Amino acid sequence: MNLQQQILDLGRRARKAARDLAKLSSEQKNAALLAMADEIMASQEAILAANEKDLKRADALSPATIDRLKLNVERITAMAGGVRQVVALADPVGKVVREWARPNGIRISKMRVAIGVIGIVYESRPNVTTDAAVLCTKAGNATILRGGSESIHSNLAIVEALQRGAAKGGLPADSILLIADTDREAIKHLAELDGYVDLIIPRGGHALIEAVINVARVPVIKHSDGVCIVYVDKEADLDMALEIVTNAKTQRPAVCNAIETVLIHGEVATPFLQKLALRMEEKKVELRADARAFTQLSALEYTRLRRASEADWSTEFLDLVLAVGVVDSPSRAIEHIERFGSHHSDCIVTRNARTAEQFLRDVDSATVYWNASTRFTDGGEFGFGAEIGISTDRLHARGPMALEELTSYKYVIRGDGQIRT
Amino acid sequence: MNLQQQILDLGRRARKAARDLAKLSSEQKNAALLAMADEIMASQEAILAANEKDLKRADALSPATIDRLKLNVERITAMAGGVRQVVALADPVGKVVREWARPNGIRISKMRVAIGVIGIVYESRPNVTTDAAVLCTKAGNATILRGGSESIHSNLAIVEALQRGAAKGGLPADSILLIADTDREAIKHLAELDGYVDLIIPRGGHALIEAVINVARVPVIKHSDGVCIVYVDKEADLDMALEIVTNAKTQRPAVCNAIETVLIHGEVATPFLQKLALRMEEKKVELRADARAFTQLSALEYTRLRRASEADWSTEFLDLVLAVGVVDSPSRAIEHIERFGSHHSDCIVTRNARTAEQFLRDVDSATVYWNASTRFTDGGEFGFGAEIGISTDRLHARGPMALEELTSYKYVIRGDGQIRT
Repeated sequence: MNLQQQILDLGRRARKAARDLAKLSSEQKNAALLAMADEIMASQEAILAANEKDLKRADALSPATIDRLKLNVERITAMAGGVRQVVALADPVGKVVREWARPNGIRISKMRVAIGVIGIVYESRPNVTTDAAVLCTKAGNATILRGGSESIHSNLAIVEALQRGAAKGGLPADSILLIADTDREAIKHLAELDGYVDLIIPRGGHALIEAVINVARVPVIKHSDGVCIVYVDKEADLDMALEIVTNAKTQRPAVCNAIETVLIHGEVATPFLQKLALRMEEKKVELRADARAFTQLSALEYTRLRRASEADWSTEFLDLVLAVGVVDSPSRAIEHIERFGSHHSDCIVTRNARTAEQFLRDVDSATVYWNASTRFTDGGEFGFGAEIGISTDRLHARGPMALEELTSYKYVIRGDGQIRT
Repeated sequence: MNLQQQILDLGRRARKAARDLAKLSSEQKNAALLAMADEIMASQEAILAANEKDLKRADALSPATIDRLKLNVERITAMAGGVRQVVALADPVGKVVREWARPNGIRISKMRVAIGVIGIVYESRPNVTTDAAVLCTKAGNATILRGGSESIHSNLAIVEALQRGAAKGGLPADSILLIADTDREAIKHLAELDGYVDLIIPRGGHALIEAVINVARVPVIKHSDGVCIVYVDKEADLDMALEIVTNAKTQRPAVCNAIETVLIHGEVATPFLQKLALRMEEKKVELRADARAFTQLSALEYTRLRRASEADWSTEFLDLVLAVGVVDSPSRAIEHIERFGSHHSDCIVTRNARTAEQFLRDVDSATVYWNASTRFTDGGEFGFGAEIGISTDRLHARGPMALEELTSYKYVIRGDGQIRT
């Protein structure tokens, strides 16, 4: 079989599994998930040995990538623990979302059902393999995984453990499949499989997402960049603003809900930049400033200072770099966010409720904050228990995407002989 | 400007309009809708003259197409009436779907917002022009319309009236745009405009839908075929079954929620086929029968009788043609439906609640019926007030797609300085 035929074969097998998976009870799915967690723990040695192979090939990679790639007993235990957490989550499938009757007497129920077959295309971190497979399974979907080539051995070992657990737990064969071929053409063939694959979720950088949407015939929900912005209003509590900016920039700079830009109202620019310079110096953050901020930060003798280029305002630095701008009104801040932001997570810090409500209404982002860190854009922090990622799309799922977003729905209609006249 | 540049220009203008449209109050949108209805009535003569031009070119078309295309005073009045009905519908934008607090004190609201720019690609019927534009507008979206070449003059005249009304009613310029170029390449350029177009809804035949999904970089919600099926169980009230089959097949055979196949349990095949033959003969319906049904219908000397081919079971006849099969259990009926149906609207007729519930659970279609005609799959019949069409996809919207399905959502989060630890 050539690669295209192999992917088609995976699609067919997943489709068949999906039909049976969709009908399983919560108890059946939970039993299988527990068996999968057990098998991950039982397969620790095999998984670590496989991971070792990936790491040997990873010499050319950055320390950050190696850190994402590396597994140890603690991380494998956390993986298994994550699976058990999903057991505790409510099963969305079969839930009646709404129910009503029509004047002619027919009763309509809108009920959640599985989506079917979900393709997950991702990079580096091997824990995505379990997270994605387990959430898809709980929502009654078959999963086709396509991880990065740098973690292929780890992913193969993890999927083998998951498949053994799934078999012991009574899931249909082929409920969880992995594309073992690391050729990028495989993504193309997967994305063309309408009729077999119902949804593809690409999680990763620009090139990966382009590779999917350029060719996809299948619906796609993108998990793309976060260029997130905090606006410090003239009526902000400046100490609160400083804590929020510090948290959103430095707690974990490489994630999508970290901020890239802070905008400061002109009337508070001097006192806020003083506080910010002290704190950012301490955190070793490079500042890229617009003309007004640059003048003040130069006067403060900030060491890691550059002038912001036009491109900086729309760049996801994923690092200890922060663009700093001064604006003269909340409206200007909103304009900046709409123009340069990625509509992921944006925040206003202010004491003025009216200004805040204008911002919350007019900023068109998946998550808009008033006086809280953008780092809360996360399925766990939202109370969803777990997430498959953060959708940067507007259709079906926007923002943190969890079990409910991994379902579709159907209408069930009960009558007693009604016909349309 | 070449065609691609023209479409890009439309996309840019629509994007700009969408930003302002999304912020309008219900009152502002309703005022504009009423002005649009008035302008349609005031432009009757121009619309009829344009329609006359389309009809002159339509000699080569089928009588059914000409009927769909033809406008008269009554139809134009109905169009304007349809617009006024949308004014009365609740505005989904700004509605808080769910609201909760987290242990750290942040309060999260999930709020409906407009999607943005929606492209509607459709065929023949000019009334889709108003229906689509008006529903998109009410949900705060900018609309780019692309009707069929056969109705181009009518569509242009209707859109001019809508645009005049929109301007008088205070909508942003470019809220409603029409692609005047009937070159099919225009669809390609539209479907590639990610960043400017947020969603494309193709409504029409297989070729039209393929033309969109083959090239789309933009999310698509397909409005495709309906191969709908009624299963008459051995415990069916046969008179009820006859009325449901008659209604679902003959009341309006050219629509997507009409049925194409009836499956009959072997134990009631003889009495049901007798009733069916009489009624279908009267309604001039051609029957395409499997081996067992053919034997019986031949014995009954049914005049419009053919043997069903394999292809017939998955064909949307859109005409007075009905495939007839005999099955030996509800499970066989479900298997047939899953294999040959299009997962649109399917029905079981039975008195047995257990059999019915099995069918309702296991048939994976957008709408599944127990003892009611499949013709109720319709936004109006569901109580949604109006519909933009029937989604045959599983993501974002499935089945009748109305105002709510023309929205996205965002999360609004209010805190008092929370940061993530």
